[in-house]
Amino acid sequence: MTDFPLRLATRKNGARDGELMLVSPDARRWAPAAGPARTLQALLDDWAALTPALDEQRRGLDASGWASAAPFEASACMAPLPRAFQWADASVYRNHARLIYQWRQEPIPPRYEEEPLVYQGGSDVMIGPEDPIVAVDEAHQIDLEAEIAVVTTDVPMGTSAAQAGDCIALVVLLNDVSLRGLIPSELAKGFGFYQSKPATSFAPIALTPAALGAAWKDGMPDLRVRIRINGGWFGEPSANEDTVFNFPQIIEHLARTRGLGAGSIVGAGTISNADPRSGSACITEARVRAQLGGAPEADLPRYLRHGDRVGIEAVGADPSDALFGAIDQRVEVRGRR
Amino acid sequence: MTDFPLRLATRKNGARDGELMLVSPDARRWAPAAGPARTLQALLDDWAALTPALDEQRRGLDASGWASAAPFEASACMAPLPRAFQWADASVYRNHARLIYQWRQEPIPPRYEEEPLVYQGGSDVMIGPEDPIVAVDEAHQIDLEAEIAVVTTDVPMGTSAAQAGDCIALVVLLNDVSLRGLIPSELAKGFGFYQSKPATSFAPIALTPAALGAAWKDGMPDLRVRIRINGGWFGEPSANEDTVFNFPQIIEHLARTRGLGAGSIVGAGTISNADPRSGSACITEARVRAQLGGAPEADLPRYLRHGDRVGIEAVGADPSDALFGAIDQRVEVRGRR
Repeated sequence: MTDFPLRLATRKNGARDGELMLVSPDARRWAPAAGPARTLQALLDDWAALTPALDEQRRGLDASGWASAAPFEASACMAPLPRAFQWADASVYRNHARLIYQWRQEPIPPRYEEEPLVYQGGSDVMIGPEDPIVAVDEAHQIDLEAEIAVVTTDVPMGTSAAQAGDCIALVVLLNDVSLRGLIPSELAKGFGFYQSKPATSFAPIALTPAALGAAWKDGMPDLRVRIRINGGWFGEPSANEDTVFNFPQIIEHLARTRGLGAGSIVGAGTISNADPRSGSACITEARVRAQLGGAPEADLPRYLRHGDRVGIEAVGADPSDALFGAIDQRVEVRGRR
Repeated sequence: MTDFPLRLATRKNGARDGELMLVSPDARRWAPAAGPARTLQALLDDWAALTPALDEQRRGLDASGWASAAPFEASACMAPLPRAFQWADASVYRNHARLIYQWRQEPIPPRYEEEPLVYQGGSDVMIGPEDPIVAVDEAHQIDLEAEIAVVTTDVPMGTSAAQAGDCIALVVLLNDVSLRGLIPSELAKGFGFYQSKPATSFAPIALTPAALGAAWKDGMPDLRVRIRINGGWFGEPSANEDTVFNFPQIIEHLARTRGLGAGSIVGAGTISNADPRSGSACITEARVRAQLGGAPEADLPRYLRHGDRVGIEAVGADPSDALFGAIDQRVEVRGRR
């Protein structure tokens, strides 16, 4: 697949699927995407045919220094796909599996090293970078999970890992919000997550692998992801360290018995590094680490509460490259606090 | 919600989401849906505002005996929603749970009687009533599951069962194709189904509860569903017998920690009755029944093979009412047979 260096976002315009935007590399400017695709889904539906003209528009804007373009504001953005036809999330970071199954007091699932561990997530409501994380009860133990995912074009059944790279249209950064208090009893029923995974939040900008340049390496993002809670540093793990599988391998697994439709979002799971100096991309990991270090229950990092703020952004080699832009969300607990 | 007696289908027109059709009660005629919604998803996105005009069109067609309308052919139809933003399936038939967990040699999941057991299914590719069931290997043990589901409008977070009936726009009939050979090892990993649930197939016609009339009773379809394999009768269970929860109760469960987007498909699981004379809506159940009756392994009903045909249709009180129309699919195994 010809891969152009595109940065795309979706503007709130009152419609369910928003309006497709082209964004400048420094994320200071944006222009309405020219061409027939008015939404990101429409573009993904006809990706190979429509991206050349979009790249021509991008080259013109780059040449003019985006002088005629409007200022970009993350707060005006929805998720790149405000609703998607599929959200399938894997768990490929060995250190996350190690810590999370320690928390669950269960062994790591069988065949974890042999094939990607995946679940089907809810994709009907995806929320924007500055939309609130709405929960109904603090006792649900509201947690974040910083992750990177790809968005595919059509993936035929039986696509191999060697072919799957050609099906990766875009890369996105997200917060797979999880209600830890509901997970053990929900997974005990054997059918996977549902209530324990409320709406997922997305950083505003979706980038093509070409836009990531050297930060896209062997089917994985070679970036660090920085997490802040209430402004304080919480973690900054590398998204390309100690992984069991890369994105093309996850896609091969997903496509074994069925094809994937254009616009499927495929995640790699909570980023996690063995070195504790990298911090954590979810609160549960930080709690397990503290417990292993002998901290008493009262001193463990607490789960999110009403009013808390979560910040997530990627950090690359070039500080002038805004990459995905930032997630900056406030927690809003509507029921019991 | 004002509920009009509408019968809707989606015609193959080369586009991913097809063309919205209005269908006559006997399913012999159809007309293009008038009004701004060109697809079923577009109609669901603005259901309350757009259905009154559609019902006016329907009344005109009924008055004229659909004389000017074109002949309806199920083979020209896609799934009512050829791709959906959500497919969440429950398992509310006690007898199915009893037999299927006997097959899995595991206890029925905890809290089965207290809250709906649900999983998040893949919704990016839904297939039409006469599209082939494509599989890659007969050793995957290709099975059918005849089910009824509802399609929702927007469901706000925290919607109660008492309110949820108002969010039910349509009722559909489907085949939740399952690869039994992949289920035990996939569920053992704890994250639910993925490879074991390939694309789901749908009968052509989606009906509003008002179109079902007396066959919609207390939030459940009061109908029998007839299953045929290679033309032979396989089962005809009642969809309203010995259920743990009804559709409004399933929706309440799904909406506990998140809202559902318009066009979410919510299933009740494989229909099953305790009386063995009702036959089965999946092959695995029939195998367990035969085993319990002492049949040797060689005499158990076999799973689907290349070239087999599966027929599923609902049977109501009025034989002139076509209800959902019929699923009539051929199995196509592309790999190992």
